[in-house]
Amino acid sequence: MNVAIIGLGLIGGSIALELKKNGFSKKTIGVDKNISHCKKAIALNIIDEIQNLENAVLKSDLVIISTPVDASTQIITSILDIVDKQIVMDVGSTKYALTNQIKNHLKRGNFVATHPIAGTEFSGPTAAQHKLFKGKVTIICDQKDSSPNALNTVKEIYRILEMKTIFMTSKDHDVHSAYVSHISHISSFSLALSVMDKEKDEKNILNMAGSGFESTVRLAKSNKDMWTPIFGENKENILEVLENYIEKLNEFKKAIKNNDKSSMNILIENANGIRKILK
Amino acid sequence: MNVAIIGLGLIGGSIALELKKNGFSKKTIGVDKNISHCKKAIALNIIDEIQNLENAVLKSDLVIISTPVDASTQIITSILDIVDKQIVMDVGSTKYALTNQIKNHLKRGNFVATHPIAGTEFSGPTAAQHKLFKGKVTIICDQKDSSPNALNTVKEIYRILEMKTIFMTSKDHDVHSAYVSHISHISSFSLALSVMDKEKDEKNILNMAGSGFESTVRLAKSNKDMWTPIFGENKENILEVLENYIEKLNEFKKAIKNNDKSSMNILIENANGIRKILK
Repeated sequence: MNVAIIGLGLIGGSIALELKKNGFSKKTIGVDKNISHCKKAIALNIIDEIQNLENAVLKSDLVIISTPVDASTQIITSILDIVDKQIVMDVGSTKYALTNQIKNHLKRGNFVATHPIAGTEFSGPTAAQHKLFKGKVTIICDQKDSSPNALNTVKEIYRILEMKTIFMTSKDHDVHSAYVSHISHISSFSLALSVMDKEKDEKNILNMAGSGFESTVRLAKSNKDMWTPIFGENKENILEVLENYIEKLNEFKKAIKNNDKSSMNILIENANGIRKILK
Repeated sequence: MNVAIIGLGLIGGSIALELKKNGFSKKTIGVDKNISHCKKAIALNIIDEIQNLENAVLKSDLVIISTPVDASTQIITSILDIVDKQIVMDVGSTKYALTNQIKNHLKRGNFVATHPIAGTEFSGPTAAQHKLFKGKVTIICDQKDSSPNALNTVKEIYRILEMKTIFMTSKDHDVHSAYVSHISHISSFSLALSVMDKEKDEKNILNMAGSGFESTVRLAKSNKDMWTPIFGENKENILEVLENYIEKLNEFKKAIKNNDKSSMNILIENANGIRKILK
């Protein structure tokens, strides 16, 4: 197959590498507004050639949209407008705004909405890597809205990436993502801001990072070009969980302020429930 | 040397293992209110015998206090009251309340206040392990208040544990700990509470945990018997950082609510500053 990768970042680049290695893609065409990303992706042999969006779509059998989520929502209609038999998939971290926009499009069946849950805190084509997806989970949303042919091709791709595929609606996906993923990022960004506010001497942060800080703050290295759009596209769900999260922090604050050890114990014991879920 | 370990948990147990392996301790005497911990520590060959607190102190050359921090603060005076030449050290996560209490004690010089920054989310003697400390940082507080002999012995212990020793006052230690370590735990406990509030189906958490959630929530497995006392002993500093942290979260909330992408970008870019500190 000829494969177009729209957006040559960590995820798009890593998928391109796997499909090339496996022989699934005969030719890989890259599209990216960022010229330096294009050059790097060619140099790293992630893609074979650069095209503009329209040419890339017309010359491909499969189009993978791996741009920031607001860009995906912006371009999806214009892509579906020009496809014939091409299969189109996205790999973004939010799903509802995008799928809602094309729900009545004549070519909706050509499209499969997906979200492979993999990544690192690094970005751009130089961050692309083999085996990024192996053993991890991918989500396919609203599968009944995709044609059997498109769905089977996308399932095949995730088999190649060695991922476990699960299914849910776009709406559920965005709620769960807000609770399990998006809030973790806001929590981590805010932690980094708070610590750097106070700790003018970086040595103190470095010396104490082993105390758990390093793992909680890791996500604060994440890129604004990816995350600001996610916060925009999944606004309502994120505001709901953020509200709930701040409430929990206020419960801790109140208990600590009042030297209320019994409330602190109960909060911590309840939080420990996560041990049963994540071993 | 005969070494008494007061509190047979992860840290006390792991230190006992290293000192025994290295030959530094000739006999290791364990003290713990929890009978099951005592039995396990004997069975795991972490300690050689069990004594009550007073006998353990009298029969030892070195006393290591590795109880929860409120217990350490409670027992430190009674220990110093009965020591002769024994060297006493603690390994707790807060330092000011304890050192402040004994600042005028006649035997203050026998005591060294320390905090080895190492651990896992597990607790009790069965969590004790070799090489837990290797390559990590330990903090010695208020070194000038300890006798040269006590100080040198404790430095030697941390050389055996292969730790890098740094020095600061108890007061500074507690401020930095609040900012770099304690808030991370509150952040993580609250995240776990928030997610479990909403996600009644554990499968959704499991499926999406790879999205960064697993690393931010790891500390939520931490034990109440260790952490409630820390929150109590370091109350003022923790309330200050918690306030600041909630403020940052509210800045995110406001920006998301107002679709203010420019503010979101600035917040994330500032948070990314952590990349320069933690590679």
